[in-house]
Amino acid sequence: MIILGLDPGIAILGYGIVKKENHKLKAIDYGTIETSKDLEEPQRLLSLANSLEKLIDMYKPDVVAVEELFFNKNVKTAITVAQARGVILMVILKKGVKLHEYTPLQIKQGVVGYGRATKPQVQTMVKTLLNLEKIPRPDDAADGLAIAICHNNFSAMNVVAQKGGWSR
Amino acid sequence: MIILGLDPGIAILGYGIVKKENHKLKAIDYGTIETSKDLEEPQRLLSLANSLEKLIDMYKPDVVAVEELFFNKNVKTAITVAQARGVILMVILKKGVKLHEYTPLQIKQGVVGYGRATKPQVQTMVKTLLNLEKIPRPDDAADGLAIAICHNNFSAMNVVAQKGGWSR
Repeated sequence: MIILGLDPGIAILGYGIVKKENHKLKAIDYGTIETSKDLEEPQRLLSLANSLEKLIDMYKPDVVAVEELFFNKNVKTAITVAQARGVILMVILKKGVKLHEYTPLQIKQGVVGYGRATKPQVQTMVKTLLNLEKIPRPDDAADGLAIAICHNNFSAMNVVAQKGGWSR
Repeated sequence: MIILGLDPGIAILGYGIVKKENHKLKAIDYGTIETSKDLEEPQRLLSLANSLEKLIDMYKPDVVAVEELFFNKNVKTAITVAQARGVILMVILKKGVKLHEYTPLQIKQGVVGYGRATKPQVQTMVKTLLNLEKIPRPDDAADGLAIAICHNNFSAMNVVAQKGGWSR
């Protein structure tokens, strides 16, 4: 199973692609899709959509996991990110790929097992779980990987739960 | 010149299409693109994108005018509308159509000549300027027409200004 994790943004969209093989997680690729400040917002949205389509075509993920919006920023920033996020969700559906959304809390829980984990804790866990030599840079790429790992871990738990091995 | 005016939303996208012929504005079509509440948000965004593409293909507007987001609603609503708006802007650019954005204040000024005009005043003006028998329904469709008229009026003023007939 190939999982694409996305950390939405208009200037920088962080992504991480992981693959599960023989019960082990492997980082296939990670990085960022960036749009130029010189472009107007609608052009940045189109550029984002095109780049994301190419990324999906290239890696053919089975599922895309996307971070949900966090509202503690100012409204203007939230609006800008939401516009990019709308485009991202639409492109994923258009490509016919399964989509899951996770809150920042769920991502921390899914990666570190603790919803109030710090960013360095999450990043260190990403490095360890994927057996990387160092913490991926920039942060947006590490976040993309964290979101992909989060989906893997939650879906693994669901399998257990469906088999009746997990109960509250 | 064919102008498509759009009043963005995820549940209801209002549109109005006007054409200028012999210095007279004519309503070509108006209505709404609606997405089902039974669909999840990403599916609604994709449905919106597909319907808007069809609308643009059908009427081949020279320009699309879109209302800018108004922030006095709650943040959750603003985020939802912003996600739809991002998709709308992206589709317009993808279709290679010129795009202009107007604030609610500019739309009132452009249609009624007064930025604090009421909704009924704007709607009555839409009916009068387009020589319609009654006020278009629903409100979202009337808003779409208002936005298209606004663009027409502002661009007419710009032409005058460029010709040197207009000065501050």
